[in-house]
Amino acid sequence: MPDQKIFIFDTTLRDGEQVPGCKLNTKEKIELALQLEALGVDIIEAGFPISSPGDFHSVEEISRIIKNASVCGLSRAVQKDIETAAQALKHARRPRIHTGIGTSDSHIKSKFNSTREEILTRAVQAVKWAKNFVDDVEFYAEDAGRTQNDYLARVIEAVIAAGATVVNIPDTTGYCLPDQYGEKIAYLVNNVPNIDKAVISCHCHNDLGLATANSIAGIRNGARQIECTINGLGERAGNTSLEEVVMVIKQHKDLGFYTGINTKALNPMSQLVSDTMRMPVQPNKAIVGANAFSHSSGIHQDGFLKDASTYEIINPEEVGAEGSKIVLTARSGRSALAFRLHKIGYSFTRNDIDTLYERFLQVADTKKEVMENDLHELAKTYQASAVAV
Amino acid sequence: MPDQKIFIFDTTLRDGEQVPGCKLNTKEKIELALQLEALGVDIIEAGFPISSPGDFHSVEEISRIIKNASVCGLSRAVQKDIETAAQALKHARRPRIHTGIGTSDSHIKSKFNSTREEILTRAVQAVKWAKNFVDDVEFYAEDAGRTQNDYLARVIEAVIAAGATVVNIPDTTGYCLPDQYGEKIAYLVNNVPNIDKAVISCHCHNDLGLATANSIAGIRNGARQIECTINGLGERAGNTSLEEVVMVIKQHKDLGFYTGINTKALNPMSQLVSDTMRMPVQPNKAIVGANAFSHSSGIHQDGFLKDASTYEIINPEEVGAEGSKIVLTARSGRSALAFRLHKIGYSFTRNDIDTLYERFLQVADTKKEVMENDLHELAKTYQASAVAV
Repeated sequence: MPDQKIFIFDTTLRDGEQVPGCKLNTKEKIELALQLEALGVDIIEAGFPISSPGDFHSVEEISRIIKNASVCGLSRAVQKDIETAAQALKHARRPRIHTGIGTSDSHIKSKFNSTREEILTRAVQAVKWAKNFVDDVEFYAEDAGRTQNDYLARVIEAVIAAGATVVNIPDTTGYCLPDQYGEKIAYLVNNVPNIDKAVISCHCHNDLGLATANSIAGIRNGARQIECTINGLGERAGNTSLEEVVMVIKQHKDLGFYTGINTKALNPMSQLVSDTMRMPVQPNKAIVGANAFSHSSGIHQDGFLKDASTYEIINPEEVGAEGSKIVLTARSGRSALAFRLHKIGYSFTRNDIDTLYERFLQVADTKKEVMENDLHELAKTYQASAVAV
Repeated sequence: MPDQKIFIFDTTLRDGEQVPGCKLNTKEKIELALQLEALGVDIIEAGFPISSPGDFHSVEEISRIIKNASVCGLSRAVQKDIETAAQALKHARRPRIHTGIGTSDSHIKSKFNSTREEILTRAVQAVKWAKNFVDDVEFYAEDAGRTQNDYLARVIEAVIAAGATVVNIPDTTGYCLPDQYGEKIAYLVNNVPNIDKAVISCHCHNDLGLATANSIAGIRNGARQIECTINGLGERAGNTSLEEVVMVIKQHKDLGFYTGINTKALNPMSQLVSDTMRMPVQPNKAIVGANAFSHSSGIHQDGFLKDASTYEIINPEEVGAEGSKIVLTARSGRSALAFRLHKIGYSFTRNDIDTLYERFLQVADTKKEVMENDLHELAKTYQASAVAV
């Protein structure tokens, strides 16, 4: 079987933009949308048009400017929401309306004070309303992660019959374990008779640190779209990180999947989103953190310098990161010291390096990191003492 | 079967401290070690004694002061390393030496220029040396994630026969998928005849964002120790996050595991480590990020205010975080606005709120977040206009 394409649905501009402090103006949203298209995402969720006049305007302008990607607008299963989304998407070449409703008992009772039958009717109605405006309608079964599978299957079958082209199975609270989420997708594949008429989508949250693993479990069990954000931004602990799922798929070719993402643009994209939204990325963030390709312990540096693949599974250039760094600290070994000294123009024998290493450790024990000027100082003092003897 | 205890092995002071910029002095290391013990970790990996005189001193001082937790020192499979580690641990009540060697073909060839048989001999020898000094010897099979299972099983059997009490199976490069890592642990359980004489340990790295899922897959297949760090610090993209695995185990009681961690200390511990190491935690970090319990979209806020469990699986107090926040942005709805206005002393009718909400959105579209002073301004202007009519 040839490799299967996984559609990348980016919701940085919708779920990501909901984050406190991340709100963007229209100009910023347009700039990010253009870069997301250049990155190769298949669907850009541009916003939630009914939520505010400003966001309506942003979705409208993004719809005008995006050429290849689908542009998607969010709505609740409410007629006015859907009409407003349709209006904002009017100029899009590939418009998609994303509508849906909570299907877990918790949502049905606490949020809607409703019943399963009524929610099912509202779900179908919402898809039909949306179909009046666009062909491409995605339905989300909110809190699907905690929805009983038999009821979820009934809802999914009904919305596909009503015309939904994509069915989104969100783990809204980030609660599922990978096996559980994978089994839920497999259940739908096996129990929804018309499931082949729609694409199943994974929308996972990272409250327990499992969003990436859950999304991969989803596609292994039959889903073909992943909803994600740059840097894993989103409500609470955020959404699935785009950069992580894309690189899992790329590194594990045996899974039999591919995406349309230009991975060399991942790090520049991460920085642009971080700068624009003013949301820092922690140095130890996978793929796009500042330290993701830094080696500092002696054991790792020594192995890495002999053969990068001993400690590095991804070539930094492949994800647009600066080259691997050899950082010097009190945990670094002789080979790293020699490497860095050589890089700034000094050639020492192994005996020299042994002596220099003792002095280096004394310096390193007093500092977090030994910098280039410290190395010059070390090397010059050593050369002077060698001459003096 | 009663719940099984998972031992939490914290390596913040060793693998975490290797990170560029995270080096700590002895005083700082002692302070963190005491807090780790108070948090309830079972084993504190305090450092790598041979790496520098400063680190030797830190391990020595931590050994003197820690009462309940095991104190562990790292070493390579080298006699001098092991002797130095033993010396640094001399005063520990529960000393553990952690020694080992790379077992993947990549490490055997590129790093050691050696053979499988020679590496096996060196592994056994290292454990025997360590056993001369302490009872509790942990062996690490570096790059086990990429080591062939049959050879790995031979090494593990041999080191257990030589006296290893814990066998650490690191996914050094963070490459494994959860299924693969789980299968590797299951293979060892099923193919190492003396495996019941040792505890299997998971040591996962987060290069692809899968460390938490991999560690959970490990314990589900028979491992009983997880090596992890506060905030997921560590080489490159870091190690498994202590706070994430502990909360997965606590939230998913059906897994049948427990840990000795006092979860209410997780957020204070995270902040202490972040401040001491000067390593920022991104706001969307699971469990300990500043936004981990923030709700800002209208849909989420409305549901959350009706019943917290609609969008929150963990009570923030349970992990020592400040209460859930209702942040007001242009994506917030009427119920959140009413909630926040009520909180600062204003009572409005639903009709009032409808009018106020339109004005609120105008303000919100120009700002990232609507703050308390903006709300006072809104409320007072509204009250004045109502009086004027």
